[in-house]
Amino acid sequence: MASQSYQFVTLTTDFGHFDGFVACVKGVILSYAPKVSIFDISHEVKPFDVQSTAWIIHNTYSYFPKGTIHVVVVDPGVGTCRRPLLLVSKDHIFIGPDNGVFSYVLEDKERWQAFLLNNPEYYLQEPSATFHGRDIFAPVAGHIASGVAPKLVGAPIDLDTLVRFSVSEPLITDQSVIGEITYIDRFGNLITNIDAASVSLGAPVFINGKSVGTIATTYGSVKVGQITALIGSHGYVEIGVNGGRGDLALGVGLGAQVLVQVADQIP
Amino acid sequence: MASQSYQFVTLTTDFGHFDGFVACVKGVILSYAPKVSIFDISHEVKPFDVQSTAWIIHNTYSYFPKGTIHVVVVDPGVGTCRRPLLLVSKDHIFIGPDNGVFSYVLEDKERWQAFLLNNPEYYLQEPSATFHGRDIFAPVAGHIASGVAPKLVGAPIDLDTLVRFSVSEPLITDQSVIGEITYIDRFGNLITNIDAASVSLGAPVFINGKSVGTIATTYGSVKVGQITALIGSHGYVEIGVNGGRGDLALGVGLGAQVLVQVADQIP
Amino acid sequence: MASQSYQFVTLTTDFGHFDGFVACVKGVILSYAPKVSIFDISHEVKPFDVQSTAWIIHNTYSYFPKGTIHVVVVDPGVGTCRRPLLLVSKDHIFIGPDNGVFSYVLEDKERWQAFLLNNPEYYLQEPSATFHGRDIFAPVAGHIASGVAPKLVGAPIDLDTLVRFSVSEPLITDQSVIGEITYIDRFGNLITNIDAASVSLGAPVFINGKSVGTIATTYGSVKVGQITALIGSHGYVEIGVNGGRGDLALGVGLGAQVLVQVADQIP
Repeated sequence: MASQSYQFVTLTTDFGHFDGFVACVKGVILSYAPKVSIFDISHEVKPFDVQSTAWIIHNTYSYFPKGTIHVVVVDPGVGTCRRPLLLVSKDHIFIGPDNGVFSYVLEDKERWQAFLLNNPEYYLQEPSATFHGRDIFAPVAGHIASGVAPKLVGAPIDLDTLVRFSVSEPLITDQSVIGEITYIDRFGNLITNIDAASVSLGAPVFINGKSVGTIATTYGSVKVGQITALIGSHGYVEIGVNGGRGDLALGVGLGAQVLVQVADQIP
Repeated sequence: MASQSYQFVTLTTDFGHFDGFVACVKGVILSYAPKVSIFDISHEVKPFDVQSTAWIIHNTYSYFPKGTIHVVVVDPGVGTCRRPLLLVSKDHIFIGPDNGVFSYVLEDKERWQAFLLNNPEYYLQEPSATFHGRDIFAPVAGHIASGVAPKLVGAPIDLDTLVRFSVSEPLITDQSVIGEITYIDRFGNLITNIDAASVSLGAPVFINGKSVGTIATTYGSVKVGQITALIGSHGYVEIGVNGGRGDLALGVGLGAQVLVQVADQIP
Repeated sequence: MASQSYQFVTLTTDFGHFDGFVACVKGVILSYAPKVSIFDISHEVKPFDVQSTAWIIHNTYSYFPKGTIHVVVVDPGVGTCRRPLLLVSKDHIFIGPDNGVFSYVLEDKERWQAFLLNNPEYYLQEPSATFHGRDIFAPVAGHIASGVAPKLVGAPIDLDTLVRFSVSEPLITDQSVIGEITYIDRFGNLITNIDAASVSLGAPVFINGKSVGTIATTYGSVKVGQITALIGSHGYVEIGVNGGRGDLALGVGLGAQVLVQVADQIP
């Protein structure tokens, strides 16, 4: 693997914007790679919410230029035996804990090589037990950004040994596609795991058996305050309220069942 | 219009900091213009609050260096027929929806040229109906930043056709200036549309007919917890509480009437 | 003092992310120093909370590369006679109000030289009385970053005249170390002023006389929901709940007494 250097780093954490934790991570990265530009994906993830973080990074990282390093620190097991990881593809690099946060990213498994960050030479000296974002992940990111080869910072490990939560797949039949709510965004829109390609505009949609209308093109297609389904910007069926919050209007949360009728089955 | 390239981009949205939406926009801009520096103006605008956004960008953008591109995505009508815009002056560039968000910026109309972003060659491929920030405004900003001429990304349109909400003007008489609260900042300070130049230090101020004292120079001029009026940092009369929240203390909101007596009329 | 230029600037304020105040400050800095990279430490400090700000900057700034300029604007006395300051060491520079916000930074007093920012030539023209962040601190930071010598922007002043709140020191005896809660982070962890070096792993810890167990290595050392003490990432004893909030679980706040038994006194 040829040594190369990187221009962009992204950060995703549950550190919030209050304490200066994020700034510590950035400061350390800059100490090793002063020329990188650092971008925030999110620091407002609910503390320890590995599952939402996995969804957010999966749906964001590929919009960054190739050769971006993504540092992900939502890490309830910090200081325990969970493993610190480096994931390398020809396009993107991920650095973070082996706790399932890369479950979606690793769906396309053959793209990735994994390394265990077991070389303390690339950590801060005397790393704390509680802030690996600053003491392990940040310095490794800085070293990688400045051109250190992945094989120097860690040992290759088998992708099949990595922690992954099971990513639910919709059930597709001749009559319908049945999926579930996998993410709720800040507007209260309910995002499903049902891919745009498996449904049609105008198809009737039901949440927990209750009709929420048919798949429209945009929230603006219905009146303000009205519920609608549509193909969201991530390419999945989502349900929301024009100018309002779908989660509150429908009283449903993650895991709620969503059924989309297949168009040519509509009477 | 000679092709030129830009160093700075600002973003103003109602996307919040949770979902990664802002990062998607930044990633796309960088894909076309990897050398720009991107700065956040606000992503905490109340969802769909076009009016506060208009106020914020108007009072912020001119502090950035000339030649900054400002991308504004508070866009309740995304995916409907509202038009995507590019506004160009010799100093600054704006990109965003034609929904009134540029109402204040366009007060000085002769400075601006407007273009309709109708050339999909400069969009992301297959733009979604719900996330034009990422799929239309960001790639256009990236192209413009990297030197593409405005006339290539869109067609010139008449400024008089742009959507503008009516910007309230204070009523100035010999005895008083009567205006209203047009913005409430995060400290709870109530900011009016009454310009510093039309009033004097020491002039009595009334909100909805109730005295709030006279115009001071600073919140520190009164005791902690006390209400005062002053000339705020934006150059308008504002009313607040030293070390507290004026909106809560006075129980008033946007649109509340503010009257300032003209100084030489004070008995 | 030789003229030199700086690459990094950090910002710490209580401006929040809503209004565009932070962006104004950044825009002004860039106007004088277009090549600096600007990083946020925190803008979510509780309005006017000088004490937490002092703690945050003290525990963050040294992770940034040497030669970083740190602008701190938590400034309840803006526009009154409190003095605007520049603090210079060979490693780092601070700019902000003389209101105690540098109390922790100045513990190591011999490192610093102080200057009073009394040269309006380096302010924005006609600075407002309420937004010195934008009108005084930002332009001075921009000038310093671009190579203006400290002695040009202000006059040297005696460090002993600077405002400092008293930084509490723990009481160390043969039997115990008695300190207090000095900071509560966004996870609800209670951070004390008791240094790691003065206590041992396994030592019993008491808050307001109530046992909270013994000093562990990490939150993951105890079950989810369980209270533990440990050496936090800042190098101080802290108390928290694995996967929860220590402040809520224990019902204590800033100033609560914390006692750590000395290990060889444990029966």
